Amino acid sequence: MVITLKDGSKKEYAESKSVYDIAWDISEGLARAACAGEVNGEVVDLRTVIEEDCELSILTAKDVAGLAALRHTTSHVLAEAVKNLFPEAKLAIGPSIENGFYYDFDHAPFSREDLDNIEKEMKKIIKKGARLEKFTLPRAEAIKFMEEKGEPYKVELIQDLPEDATISFYSQGEFTDLCAGPHLMNTKHIKAFKLTSSSGAYWRGNEKNKMLARIYGTAFASKDELKEYLEQREEALKRDHNKLGREMELFTTVDVIGQGLPLLMPKGVIMVKELQRWIEDLEDNEWGYVRTKTPLMAKSDLYKISGHWDHYKDGMFVLGDEEKDKEVFALRPMTCPFQYYVYKATQHSYRDLPIRLGETSTLFRNEDSGEMHGLTRVRQFTISEGHLIVRPDQMVEEFKGCLALAKYCLETLGLDGEVTYHLSKWDPNNRDKYIGDADVWNETEEDIRQILTDLKVPFVEDVGEAAFYGPKVDINAKNVFGKEDTMITVQWDALLAEQFDMYYIDEKGEKIRPCIIHRTSIGCYERTLAWLIEFYGGKFPTWLCPEQVRVLPISEKYADYAEKVNAEIKKNGIRTSVDNRSEKIGWKIRDARMARVPYMIMVGAKEEEEQKISVRSRYLGDEGQKDLGEFIDALCKEIRTKEIRKIEVEEQK
Amino acid sequence: MVITLKDGSKKEYAESKSVYDIAWDISEGLARAACAGEVNGEVVDLRTVIEEDCELSILTAKDVAGLAALRHTTSHVLAEAVKNLFPEAKLAIGPSIENGFYYDFDHAPFSREDLDNIEKEMKKIIKKGARLEKFTLPRAEAIKFMEEKGEPYKVELIQDLPEDATISFYSQGEFTDLCAGPHLMNTKHIKAFKLTSSSGAYWRGNEKNKMLARIYGTAFASKDELKEYLEQREEALKRDHNKLGREMELFTTVDVIGQGLPLLMPKGVIMVKELQRWIEDLEDNEWGYVRTKTPLMAKSDLYKISGHWDHYKDGMFVLGDEEKDKEVFALRPMTCPFQYYVYKATQHSYRDLPIRLGETSTLFRNEDSGEMHGLTRVRQFTISEGHLIVRPDQMVEEFKGCLALAKYCLETLGLDGEVTYHLSKWDPNNRDKYIGDADVWNETEEDIRQILTDLKVPFVEDVGEAAFYGPKVDINAKNVFGKEDTMITVQWDALLAEQFDMYYIDEKGEKIRPCIIHRTSIGCYERTLAWLIEFYGGKFPTWLCPEQVRVLPISEKYADYAEKVNAEIKKNGIRTSVDNRSEKIGWKIRDARMARVPYMIMVGAKEEEEQKISVRSRYLGDEGQKDLGEFIDALCKEIRTKEIRKIEVEEQK
Repeated sequence: MVITLKDGSKKEYAESKSVYDIAWDISEGLARAACAGEVNGEVVDLRTVIEEDCELSILTAKDVAGLAALRHTTSHVLAEAVKNLFPEAKLAIGPSIENGFYYDFDHAPFSREDLDNIEKEMKKIIKKGARLEKFTLPRAEAIKFMEEKGEPYKVELIQDLPEDATISFYSQGEFTDLCAGPHLMNTKHIKAFKLTSSSGAYWRGNEKNKMLARIYGTAFASKDELKEYLEQREEALKRDHNKLGREMELFTTVDVIGQGLPLLMPKGVIMVKELQRWIEDLEDNEWGYVRTKTPLMAKSDLYKISGHWDHYKDGMFVLGDEEKDKEVFALRPMTCPFQYYVYKATQHSYRDLPIRLGETSTLFRNEDSGEMHGLTRVRQFTISEGHLIVRPDQMVEEFKGCLALAKYCLETLGLDGEVTYHLSKWDPNNRDKYIGDADVWNETEEDIRQILTDLKVPFVEDVGEAAFYGPKVDINAKNVFGKEDTMITVQWDALLAEQFDMYYIDEKGEKIRPCIIHRTSIGCYERTLAWLIEFYGGKFPTWLCPEQVRVLPISEKYADYAEKVNAEIKKNGIRTSVDNRSEKIGWKIRDARMARVPYMIMVGAKEEEEQKISVRSRYLGDEGQKDLGEFIDALCKEIRTKEIRKIEVEEQK
Repeated sequence: MVITLKDGSKKEYAESKSVYDIAWDISEGLARAACAGEVNGEVVDLRTVIEEDCELSILTAKDVAGLAALRHTTSHVLAEAVKNLFPEAKLAIGPSIENGFYYDFDHAPFSREDLDNIEKEMKKIIKKGARLEKFTLPRAEAIKFMEEKGEPYKVELIQDLPEDATISFYSQGEFTDLCAGPHLMNTKHIKAFKLTSSSGAYWRGNEKNKMLARIYGTAFASKDELKEYLEQREEALKRDHNKLGREMELFTTVDVIGQGLPLLMPKGVIMVKELQRWIEDLEDNEWGYVRTKTPLMAKSDLYKISGHWDHYKDGMFVLGDEEKDKEVFALRPMTCPFQYYVYKATQHSYRDLPIRLGETSTLFRNEDSGEMHGLTRVRQFTISEGHLIVRPDQMVEEFKGCLALAKYCLETLGLDGEVTYHLSKWDPNNRDKYIGDADVWNETEEDIRQILTDLKVPFVEDVGEAAFYGPKVDINAKNVFGKEDTMITVQWDALLAEQFDMYYIDEKGEKIRPCIIHRTSIGCYERTLAWLIEFYGGKFPTWLCPEQVRVLPISEKYADYAEKVNAEIKKNGIRTSVDNRSEKIGWKIRDARMARVPYMIMVGAKEEEEQKISVRSRYLGDEGQKDLGEFIDALCKEIRTKEIRKIEVEEQK
């Protein structure tokens, strides 16, 4: 057989050979580094035997799939170590993930001390080294095997596989795990790993199941790579909005009020207020929106029409009991029908459309308190909500407008480089989940594809992610933990107008169903605030800073001049204060830096005498002496234009 | 005996005489007009016999108490008529009220047709005429009397009187009612009355009791006075916000969403948004407030600390069931503890106080749907909420600031002439209801009295209306129905900081309890909007108008110039539109007037040629030809300064 390697060179063998053996044949170094193989584009185990002509790549930890195999093997070592130290722990699942791996155990939560001990045990296992051997069993035997080992979660996993499946296992020394692979050849090839954290996780991600103990870890090909990753991670975690946002007094939570119900503190409110007013004015004055303010709750009757009562009741906060109370209400999880009723309150002609309804809308989701996180997983949030009621012939243009607006918002906030665009399409092989003809789906998806291309945004296409009534565009971003969330969505809806009996009058005087676009321009304000905190590490663009200027008198002698300067700046609508404490100037500078104030103004003898100011900024460091009026003009312009000044100096720690 | 009359003249009589007989003695005309008497300042029945020297006034329908007697007698005639036509109706109560009288009946609701028939029956009774005779019975006999008449509500009323009470009745012909009087001498003295409306009303105003049918009516001394009143009332009712606000598309309600949950429509949102931003900026930039944004719900734990769970649970919307759910939440009926926890989230020194926390805060009240009315009696509303955390030595100054701010807001809206200020004091004869020493109460009340005097606002003092923790100032206004509501309140609170363990650190490093002021600057936005609608009849000050300018091209030929003018005005942030329909100019003017647009701009050949505009305003009528730039400058100034231009022309209907 002829094996074509990645570089185009060929190897010929008379007999079948494993991937690992071919790697050895190429070079010993490659074999040592090998983590997996790729045969005709498919990732395979090193143990896979090749029997015919093919294209082969030997994957190392430099390749995504190779690194995944390394990490997956490390997760097996983790499981072996846990079973050694805590024999009562039951094994659930342990995959590799984007930045490492995890393993879930049915066991009490693990402390950091536990993790340290487990790491030691893992190092022992690795030092000793053990070959990973793959073997398979028929389904019935596989179940029996895991029952004998007393691993009920593994039994459940196997039971979910087809009757005729052959089940594969990997063993290393005494330890065996149910696994499809691929894996390294020997545990001793794990050179650099770290257990990073632990948390609770429901079995199979379902909150109705038992809460298991998850251990997260990571592994790299070398100690240097691991060290670099851990340092980066530590830096990233300092930006965790749930930590930094509290330190900066942007928000807090209170036990007796409840999880997932953050209180925005005055500094956080300044930022959200700036964002909200910007979005409201942008939408209303430049994008033709009109604004509604609709109630935060409604009778169950409304949700029965919308379908939420039957399909989403568990996710809603319900007030009252249908059997006891004459009226039952629920807090709203969406704004759609409320805005539809605003549309329905007056008659509309084809000339009135599109009608673009915007609302700064508070919504509620009844989620489990264990799922709550800072400002991103909450029970109450406020979104820049909107529904466009449009004629069918206006859909493409209006949909494009919605995406252009969202893109503009992201650019203004400096976040446009942080997102991925997803065209969420239907699944033509699963037609039951969707309504409407294939032609219409294909045409609509092609329209959206064209819109995204026109807007010059790269995008991926996700099959089967559409809403049942139409395709949508999701704009996603990652938090400091690497978790991806949808920040913005624009949805194409040609169905719901029917459900709510909405219409407009056309040229002939006939009632016609409009189409609807569900959209947001910047998403949830709480989540956007969290994102800004993490992206900027609290050093926000000046227009968003809770405190934009701090005036620092060099000594108490210049307190009056400092107050005068402060008053003049404040008069121009700039958020400024004076640090008039009797502290050393170095201390005041340090505090202003800690508070992430972008502009510090130092005033002393020279400044007062010449009626000038000395400016120190986050962007340039010492900006030298300036005329106060000129400084104010430049700063007003920076704020008005929402400029994101480049940070050109490395700030001292 | 010597009777001193109102004009100082004296009458001497050898024997005792009734008030009515003395009236006759003075003049026949006076006796005919007499409705009641006033002896030494106390209102008495005409039948009251005077036996010794006194000061006496004969009250006619020109006097408030006289008119009340006339109306009260009319309510008895109403009751008699109802019993004649609907013998099964049971009588409840029937007092005179500010603009007339009502009577409550246990009966099915009355239609307008019923009221017309009842009016006819009343006229018959009055035409026939019957002397009203007063008599009294001991309590037991009075109960028996009403039991025999089959009037259970009257029986209940008598049963509530003391055991030794002597109960008075008035009879007219066949009809007798339990009543303390005073009354006219004869039903035929009722010259002008009208039944105005009917509604439901709970027995004794308690929603747990049976809903009765109330009939409202009014009566005057002459037909002319009645006619004038009814015309005025009709005009006032056109301003009823619940009617006009819907006509102007400021808000709507939707059955399936629920009563008391109004939807603000785009035009209404513009007004509320203008109000909110004005108040937020005013408070933050000029009155030293910082802003919070706290959750709309909390766990029951919070309300247990605040006391609401035990004392106010029925008034709250509760989510979940304490017996079934692990967490029970309630929607907040107030913001206090949420803002307290923002205060508690950081440590404060005496130097940081006062801290003035403002919030544009949405609140919820679980009221019966029968009680709901437009924008004023609602289940969800948004208030310009605030709590000031202050040192005890700062209370007087800060309380004064709160009242000055409220007064400034009222003046800006042109509503300052519409309100009454109330100093709500404790009741020293009912000490159990209050905490704290008499000295402190008296001192605090004197402080507030002084503040109100300094602010030059006339005020009344209401004994027993204070909160249990301190006195307050209520600022009340009436709606078009004459119903008085509290619009703004500022409360003095030296107690609740203890309950929530709030403190600041004083000069000596010790923890001290602060005082709290609960206050609003303009009250609830929904209620303020309703008030503005009714006060201005929809012709709002320009800065609040949803549409400030409408450009009317004289014919289609000038459509381009109209658009150009419109674009120029819009660029300046003014809300403007073009009426480019192919309608006659007269029709366009009529529509703009109906929409209550303050400025119409007419453009035709002359205007386009000279690049000018013709202005017609609500204030001056035809304002003549103007330069567009000058018009915009003047209008921008009017809006920026929130000017309330005087209406100097009578607008055509």
